Amino acid sequence: MQPDKVRRVYIQEVAPRDGFQIEPNFVPTEEKIKLINRLGRTGLAKIEATSFTSPKAIPNLRDAETVMRQIERVPGVVYAALVPNVRGCERALAAGVDEINVVMSASESHNQANVRMTREQSLAQFAALVKAARGSKAFLNASLATTFGCPFDGWTPAEEVMRLVEQILEIGFQGISLCDTTGMANPRQVARLCERVRTRWPEVPFILHLHNTRGMGLSNAAAGLDAGIDRFDASLGGLGGCPFAPGATGNVCTEDLTHMFAQMGCQTGVDLDRLIEIAKDLPRIVGHEVPGQVMKAGQADRKYAKPDWVGTAKNQIAITSS
Amino acid sequence: MQPDKVRRVYIQEVAPRDGFQIEPNFVPTEEKIKLINRLGRTGLAKIEATSFTSPKAIPNLRDAETVMRQIERVPGVVYAALVPNVRGCERALAAGVDEINVVMSASESHNQANVRMTREQSLAQFAALVKAARGSKAFLNASLATTFGCPFDGWTPAEEVMRLVEQILEIGFQGISLCDTTGMANPRQVARLCERVRTRWPEVPFILHLHNTRGMGLSNAAAGLDAGIDRFDASLGGLGGCPFAPGATGNVCTEDLTHMFAQMGCQTGVDLDRLIEIAKDLPRIVGHEVPGQVMKAGQADRKYAKPDWVGTAKNQIAITSS
Repeated sequence: MQPDKVRRVYIQEVAPRDGFQIEPNFVPTEEKIKLINRLGRTGLAKIEATSFTSPKAIPNLRDAETVMRQIERVPGVVYAALVPNVRGCERALAAGVDEINVVMSASESHNQANVRMTREQSLAQFAALVKAARGSKAFLNASLATTFGCPFDGWTPAEEVMRLVEQILEIGFQGISLCDTTGMANPRQVARLCERVRTRWPEVPFILHLHNTRGMGLSNAAAGLDAGIDRFDASLGGLGGCPFAPGATGNVCTEDLTHMFAQMGCQTGVDLDRLIEIAKDLPRIVGHEVPGQVMKAGQADRKYAKPDWVGTAKNQIAITSS
Repeated sequence: MQPDKVRRVYIQEVAPRDGFQIEPNFVPTEEKIKLINRLGRTGLAKIEATSFTSPKAIPNLRDAETVMRQIERVPGVVYAALVPNVRGCERALAAGVDEINVVMSASESHNQANVRMTREQSLAQFAALVKAARGSKAFLNASLATTFGCPFDGWTPAEEVMRLVEQILEIGFQGISLCDTTGMANPRQVARLCERVRTRWPEVPFILHLHNTRGMGLSNAAAGLDAGIDRFDASLGGLGGCPFAPGATGNVCTEDLTHMFAQMGCQTGVDLDRLIEIAKDLPRIVGHEVPGQVMKAGQADRKYAKPDWVGTAKNQIAITSS
């Protein structure tokens, strides 16, 4: 802990992409645009708005162009999109994204399961993407899935992550997201790896992209913060998940994460009241309950009315909660 | 973080008391005994088995004597019970408890709401309890509710906590549980207070009793661990809650907490596989789903079968999860 230092943290919203892509039902384009517009006015640093992938592969995001072109672009907010290949990159750039995000996995099996390529093929594609983006002003970010562990191959050796990060940076990417795709990481592991990458590449903006699969999402975020990370992906209401880890809860919840950081004295830049109001609208949009907790319990400083017997204590035991 | 030091942590189960007391339905006595017997063989350090309170006040625990007398007493496990007053203390001692646990709140309004006494009255009763327990071998533990914050009075000043802990220790209590009754604490606050009490009273066993109301339960536990705390209350499946904070989730989940500590390299002494098996039986016992996540997702090292296309990569984008 660094208890007395005010820290600026940057909260990056991924629900419109990472959340909506695996929803059972298509979220109407107008709802997506409305949601992104509302989110853009909360002080979030970045919004991953959509994915320029094949409509056959991810039908839920088949409206990528419309979404990207019709959303309001709030000054200061970075509007990012995931792209799977050069074609997607060209589409995203044509639609005017601020940031291109690409994904490969640190583990071989997950990369093949997720993007149907070997890691070597992914790296080759990354190089082609950098070429395709040359001349644009778009920031190039690479997400390294299964950075901490893989549901098929087990724990990911830190050496492997270091090697891949180095290659990805050499190819020309500017930012790296360290993704705990199936929520396997623990605070100690996160602290160690974050310290290591930050020591090695102090100028590179590293992002922690955490999942709450086993309840450790916020613990891992706090550990990352202590290790000097200041950028965090999160998903409104805790939407999202991984198709290869059934039964698992989703991404770290944006409002819960923002709330924790704010409570810890960090400067998040986010209007949390407004963010929570938007989160409360999610069950209507997606048609089911979502895992977010602060939207249900309220912020930590919420006060309740005292029971009427308080102030007239009668030395009579009622309930005992500890 | 203290990344390379193996830490022994002691996990203390409170579901049979803190969980069952607020369940909508009475859990049959035989189920309680069977559950405690199973839990006793998992390596948990302590089990709070019941509460010797008035059957009118907490009907769910009206079977305290029967439970306490009929459970197996596994050597090495401390079997504790909550008592609200001298009468309860006498009943608990007669039933052969290893440890007496009492509760008062650090905040005035919550103390009156919860136990219908002023804090001064509570302290006077604590003194009477110490007298009543004199001559017994029972360990005396005091739980300080709303240590971090109160749903009525707001944040609890650390000075107030220090003052009350001092008074409670002077009265003759041997252990102190710092309780985040409605899940208001954040990791930074937990770290600060834990460091402070441990510096002032290094010989006193302090326990962290955390709730996951706003998703920060495990983060707070990790922060407490870093600040030198090694004893943690938790509730199987995440049962429990606070009657004064509606909509809130319950206590920190025992198997999720144990899992995190084990993943962090701590020695928990707990057979986690066995604990998870027992947790999976909870929905049947209480008649509803419970919030525990590891029981649903499996431990972090759980491996899944690879999709059949892995190893035959076809350079064809399918799903992209990060």
